[in-house]
Amino acid sequence: MSNQGDSNQITREYFDSILLETRYWDSDLPSAEMTLFGERFSTPVMTAALSHLDNVCPGGAVKMASGAFDAGAVHWTGMGEAEELEAIVETGARTVKIIKPHADDAVIFEKIEHANRIGVFAVGMDIDHCFNSRGGYDVVTGLPMRAKTSEQLRTYVAASRRPFVVKGVLSAKDAEKCAEAGVAGIVVSHHHGIFPYAVPPLMVLPEIVRATEHRIPVFVDCGVESGADVFKALALGADAVCVGRHLMPCLKKDDGAVAARITEITQELMSLMARTGASMLAEIDPGVLHFRAF
Amino acid sequence: MSNQGDSNQITREYFDSILLETRYWDSDLPSAEMTLFGERFSTPVMTAALSHLDNVCPGGAVKMASGAFDAGAVHWTGMGEAEELEAIVETGARTVKIIKPHADDAVIFEKIEHANRIGVFAVGMDIDHCFNSRGGYDVVTGLPMRAKTSEQLRTYVAASRRPFVVKGVLSAKDAEKCAEAGVAGIVVSHHHGIFPYAVPPLMVLPEIVRATEHRIPVFVDCGVESGADVFKALALGADAVCVGRHLMPCLKKDDGAVAARITEITQELMSLMARTGASMLAEIDPGVLHFRAF
Amino acid sequence: MSNQGDSNQITREYFDSILLETRYWDSDLPSAEMTLFGERFSTPVMTAALSHLDNVCPGGAVKMASGAFDAGAVHWTGMGEAEELEAIVETGARTVKIIKPHADDAVIFEKIEHANRIGVFAVGMDIDHCFNSRGGYDVVTGLPMRAKTSEQLRTYVAASRRPFVVKGVLSAKDAEKCAEAGVAGIVVSHHHGIFPYAVPPLMVLPEIVRATEHRIPVFVDCGVESGADVFKALALGADAVCVGRHLMPCLKKDDGAVAARITEITQELMSLMARTGASMLAEIDPGVLHFRAF
Amino acid sequence: MSNQGDSNQITREYFDSILLETRYWDSDLPSAEMTLFGERFSTPVMTAALSHLDNVCPGGAVKMASGAFDAGAVHWTGMGEAEELEAIVETGARTVKIIKPHADDAVIFEKIEHANRIGVFAVGMDIDHCFNSRGGYDVVTGLPMRAKTSEQLRTYVAASRRPFVVKGVLSAKDAEKCAEAGVAGIVVSHHHGIFPYAVPPLMVLPEIVRATEHRIPVFVDCGVESGADVFKALALGADAVCVGRHLMPCLKKDDGAVAARITEITQELMSLMARTGASMLAEIDPGVLHFRAF
Repeated sequence: MSNQGDSNQITREYFDSILLETRYWDSDLPSAEMTLFGERFSTPVMTAALSHLDNVCPGGAVKMASGAFDAGAVHWTGMGEAEELEAIVETGARTVKIIKPHADDAVIFEKIEHANRIGVFAVGMDIDHCFNSRGGYDVVTGLPMRAKTSEQLRTYVAASRRPFVVKGVLSAKDAEKCAEAGVAGIVVSHHHGIFPYAVPPLMVLPEIVRATEHRIPVFVDCGVESGADVFKALALGADAVCVGRHLMPCLKKDDGAVAARITEITQELMSLMARTGASMLAEIDPGVLHFRAF
Repeated sequence: MSNQGDSNQITREYFDSILLETRYWDSDLPSAEMTLFGERFSTPVMTAALSHLDNVCPGGAVKMASGAFDAGAVHWTGMGEAEELEAIVETGARTVKIIKPHADDAVIFEKIEHANRIGVFAVGMDIDHCFNSRGGYDVVTGLPMRAKTSEQLRTYVAASRRPFVVKGVLSAKDAEKCAEAGVAGIVVSHHHGIFPYAVPPLMVLPEIVRATEHRIPVFVDCGVESGADVFKALALGADAVCVGRHLMPCLKKDDGAVAARITEITQELMSLMARTGASMLAEIDPGVLHFRAF
Repeated sequence: MSNQGDSNQITREYFDSILLETRYWDSDLPSAEMTLFGERFSTPVMTAALSHLDNVCPGGAVKMASGAFDAGAVHWTGMGEAEELEAIVETGARTVKIIKPHADDAVIFEKIEHANRIGVFAVGMDIDHCFNSRGGYDVVTGLPMRAKTSEQLRTYVAASRRPFVVKGVLSAKDAEKCAEAGVAGIVVSHHHGIFPYAVPPLMVLPEIVRATEHRIPVFVDCGVESGADVFKALALGADAVCVGRHLMPCLKKDDGAVAARITEITQELMSLMARTGASMLAEIDPGVLHFRAF
Repeated sequence: MSNQGDSNQITREYFDSILLETRYWDSDLPSAEMTLFGERFSTPVMTAALSHLDNVCPGGAVKMASGAFDAGAVHWTGMGEAEELEAIVETGARTVKIIKPHADDAVIFEKIEHANRIGVFAVGMDIDHCFNSRGGYDVVTGLPMRAKTSEQLRTYVAASRRPFVVKGVLSAKDAEKCAEAGVAGIVVSHHHGIFPYAVPPLMVLPEIVRATEHRIPVFVDCGVESGADVFKALALGADAVCVGRHLMPCLKKDDGAVAARITEITQELMSLMARTGASMLAEIDPGVLHFRAF
């Protein structure tokens, strides 16, 4: 059987097909600072909503949060016990808690309520985990998932006293539904290749940005691993990006490694901003991009 | 000499060049049920019109039919003796019998009559077997083939008291001729690479669907090996697909293997239907497809 | 240094990027017969204007001619002594004698006169041999070459009592000049990669055919090695093709090998004509071609 | 991490994607002579503004200059002590001195003044060296660099009594700023891949030429290594090219090696000019280019 359907490989190749021109005159060192939901951060490079980081190293989820905090970055987190989330929030990291599309909405509301109570930065759902690859609902670590309606999405938004975000948007249609339901932000993602032949996030990003007309922030996930990747995502209309897999090896290194790599990626981004005449994130110009067709 | 003309490889690469966006909100588990010629089936995944399956395992043709029956799938069969066809039909599989373009029309009419009599689901002809690769008529297992006219096609359609289908359509022109001759369905196919540099079925499928204006069902053959392939074919306008070579190894496994693989492919298809917001086959939206050019 | 400039490899890749649809209904066995300069041939597959075939096998030039004759094909020949040309013509092969762009026009006129006298089929010049790769005139086996003007071309045409053809046309501009000078046919060719990064003949062929408005026959040379290649050249507007390198190994085999391979390629062509509904060369339809962009 | 962002490899692939048609009739041996800033040179092939050539061989900078002089080519030079520049100028080579964007403008003015005084051919700045890859200013061999404004550029132009050129232009926007500031020429360059995913110089060259409306000469740098590369750059609107890395191995060979390779490349260029009907540089016709998309 063909193995050309690896969505992560396809996504990598799309990143790599985008080239940059430069604009040096009247440029200078830029700022990569970002404002999100009324708060100020050092970088648009955020950690991704990873789960089960204890499998990488003991206390991995908290270590990742500390890294994000030290780097002045927004932190995202995925599945995990209430205690783990509390430990994450205690690091000081401004944390977006992503909740799975549990079959029972009561579970979802309880998790939203807990996150609200302990003071997360935002809360959200990775809707792309509702189905499995065999035509049924997914079951994640024994917990049953279920499909959700726009109507249900409105109830999650209403229940959340924090910004509510949706992760797993990979079309203008879903982006529009999120915007209409009052979602505070969306993550363009195929969940690290949760299905084959996924269109690369950057390939649908311009359509999504047009569809939501900049009413809500748009984040990009999947395969981001350098400042060049971040630059391309922002130039195509993203407000920030999530870096996941690429940071996981840092968890096995010393305590500063996560923050150091986030800072490095940010510096790589700043270098390309400087080379293309953008003094702040909002000035990154899609006109500097060129697309390979050779 | 160049070996870049392998039609199966080219077809594989075209499948692989098609990418998918997702639409999760308001989606739910889909049905893959299909109605064909007034009957209801569990899946649009059909077996292909293979011949000589005894060479794979003894009783292979009947074993394939049983598998299709168990999976609730339409069964297709190719060359074979009258007794073999009768055994196939006795499995209960709703069977499309494909007849070769024999030089002598009397042979064709006799085979149509036999198929009619024993109650096949449909009957048809694989017109792409009339010529060989050396500029002459083909001879298949000693039997002479011949080119056929639209006029002759009308006589086959008339002789058949069942739906008459044509396999081996790979252009809008041939599709139009089939529709005008009263054919009940066409199979877009290059007969597993019977000639080099064949255009991939999915590349001409949209033209063919436009040309026949949905008056007759259009099936896709050649290289289908996963639910993703099926999804792409259906999104581009096919009503169902035939899976051939990919199922042959199942004949060497235990009795349930053919049905199991048809069911698996159907589940893979359903998973992608769910992820793209299609609750039934007719709702699969070509708008979810993106084409690689990078 | 890059070795991606191999014109023969680029030409091969362009052949390979062209795909075919089929049209079986109302098609039948075709004829590949060709009329050229008022004479009838069995095939549009011609030998190419090779030189120095004695280096392949003793008497190679004559053996190639005999092969062309036996296959009912037009024969082309390149550099060689008067005696060799006479032996070639004596085989009965209808022979196009290609003369180099010798510095001294007297040499050219003498060769035209000799060819006229011994009854060649046509005579011509491979203009692409006038320059070398170091910015000077070429010297071929010690003989000095020189650039030529349209005015000189008219004198060659006038001197020839046979059809005069030009080999080495790779642009609409040169094709127009040839047509205006009264040339009887042109060979679209980069002389087997005589310079790097040559555009593939088939890529400029449609422009050349439009420019010459079918006033003169257009032949295609370089890398033709199968009936599929011939079919694509004819579909894009060529009247015939030359096969050179691909036939050279046949010279080392038994006497019938050249004719056998020409016949085989012709049969491969006929097979594709049959599959695409062309009963004669003039009916080959460019509409059956599809171009890869995936 | 992906290593597909190698700007030199991408640049090579773009060169390789450009193909050439030919125009032989009425063509003849061309001249590759070039006039620049009122002086006449034998070739549009110039040496690139390399630095630290002593690391390649002792006296490398002067050896390169002598090579350029012997070949009748314009010589460019990068960083180096005043004494080295004087020795270079004493070779007789018409030399373009490229100055780094030093943090302290006084350093720049001093270097301009020195170059003026010793009689260089032209002076300029490689603006693409102002930033490093970590979001800060670059430091080159211990010397601090800084970003520069168009206003500062005007002061450099004014200070120079020679033509002032800018190296490191890779967008129409920067080219326009250079033209408006009175710059005498620009080098389209990504400084041998100083950042990843740089658009190939030839890909933005046509835009740059349109933007500057032929008011100032445009040079192309990066990856030029053959006459075919030079031809393509000139056909797309460049007035001349710089060859750097490709000439460095010549420094390790005997004294004539640099001049010999410049001459060879020029001859390769002349060969392609001859084959495409250009008798002088200004006659090179973009219409002979074809772009691969297969």
